[in-house]
Amino acid sequence: MKVTVIGLGPGGGADLTGRARAALEGCDLIVGYTAYIELVRPDFPEKAVLSTGMRREVDRCRAAVEAALTGKDVAVVCSGDSGVYGMAGLIYEVAQEYDPIEIEVVPGITAACGGAAVLGAPLTHDFAVISLSDLLTPWEKIEKRLSAAAQADFVICLYNPSSKSRPDYLRRACDILLREKAPDTVCGTVRNIGREGEEGQLLTLAQLRDTQVDMFTTVFIGNSQTKVLSGKMVTPRGYLQRGE
Amino acid sequence: MKVTVIGLGPGGGADLTGRARAALEGCDLIVGYTAYIELVRPDFPEKAVLSTGMRREVDRCRAAVEAALTGKDVAVVCSGDSGVYGMAGLIYEVAQEYDPIEIEVVPGITAACGGAAVLGAPLTHDFAVISLSDLLTPWEKIEKRLSAAAQADFVICLYNPSSKSRPDYLRRACDILLREKAPDTVCGTVRNIGREGEEGQLLTLAQLRDTQVDMFTTVFIGNSQTKVLSGKMVTPRGYLQRGE
Repeated sequence: MKVTVIGLGPGGGADLTGRARAALEGCDLIVGYTAYIELVRPDFPEKAVLSTGMRREVDRCRAAVEAALTGKDVAVVCSGDSGVYGMAGLIYEVAQEYDPIEIEVVPGITAACGGAAVLGAPLTHDFAVISLSDLLTPWEKIEKRLSAAAQADFVICLYNPSSKSRPDYLRRACDILLREKAPDTVCGTVRNIGREGEEGQLLTLAQLRDTQVDMFTTVFIGNSQTKVLSGKMVTPRGYLQRGE
Repeated sequence: MKVTVIGLGPGGGADLTGRARAALEGCDLIVGYTAYIELVRPDFPEKAVLSTGMRREVDRCRAAVEAALTGKDVAVVCSGDSGVYGMAGLIYEVAQEYDPIEIEVVPGITAACGGAAVLGAPLTHDFAVISLSDLLTPWEKIEKRLSAAAQADFVICLYNPSSKSRPDYLRRACDILLREKAPDTVCGTVRNIGREGEEGQLLTLAQLRDTQVDMFTTVFIGNSQTKVLSGKMVTPRGYLQRGE
């Protein structure tokens, strides 16, 4: 009689927290997008699952709430964090249409943190997280956020930097960032975070503009202080610069 | 002969990922700020530890690198994530002063994600993370980032919103945000995330301005769409609004 929205971390498995693992062990039914169900199946092979394809988010959340109303403990699984571009918000919204149920949110390692660890330490200072997907957000709003984040010298982490229907969005985003940030700003891309074929790459903002990435990639754009140390992307917090 | 920088999540214990737990189990020495060592001691009582007080970050990282150079596998522990305002960046910087060593970064649940889960789902859309501590960052830069994030309608998460020497910083930050954001913008505070006495509170931006918080609190300021649903802070991603 409860929905628990669980962040699996980027790759599931060893990325799961103890709390996420316990919630999955205790549930009666796991609901999620097919690819995320696959992340937990190896660890919980005996659990009942209800998986749905991409872009069926509302249906999936309704199914989870309806199953909870029949008395089940339902786990809704999300890749990365349950909140950051995840299903937690939609579960709360959808649940308004039904009798009250208990909802719990269990956080997970989001791609910003998971990808940063692969690249080094790009997020040691203030940062902005922006999705380049304009399925649900007008592109003008995305542009405004890119521009504001660049002007204020945030480190920027881009989710959903590209897809088949938006092959040029990363280039468009970089063109906006290049109005404020130097072409040699240190950037990084990470593909398949926490999964087989995990791969990080460092490059300049000018190079990033001309790089094709896919939907399994998270992109990091440094601030004016970000540098390359031992092949890693590092944004200083300022401890050494303070002259301790 | 290796330094692993480990994010413990907000409270350690059940917040630890499998990867963080395995790294702690495999290490010879745990290095960290005293309060963070206390988060892992119950789970790893037999491990050697080296703890230092606040603001000894550079000394702590040097000690970790030097111990690794004597052949030890050293775990440097951080509350939350290892990268976000954590020690990963400083370890890379300090390591430049020594012979090369292997460095690995293991991410953890940062307070933005952990606190968001307590409040509901405030981070379902683009967000900016800003520390209000001006120990290492000029206040003018912090002001500029607050202003830019508010103008572009980011959800904003504030780390280090207050301390004894900066009791009025949150008020000053809210005054900047109030130039762009409505006084009834939905906000939330979370204290002691993942620890005993965990406590979330929802309030408006106008109320937040007149609220005193402590250094164990993380603050969330909604975007223009953020609302209160069933007593929780929820930022819609737009699935329902799309009219699916």
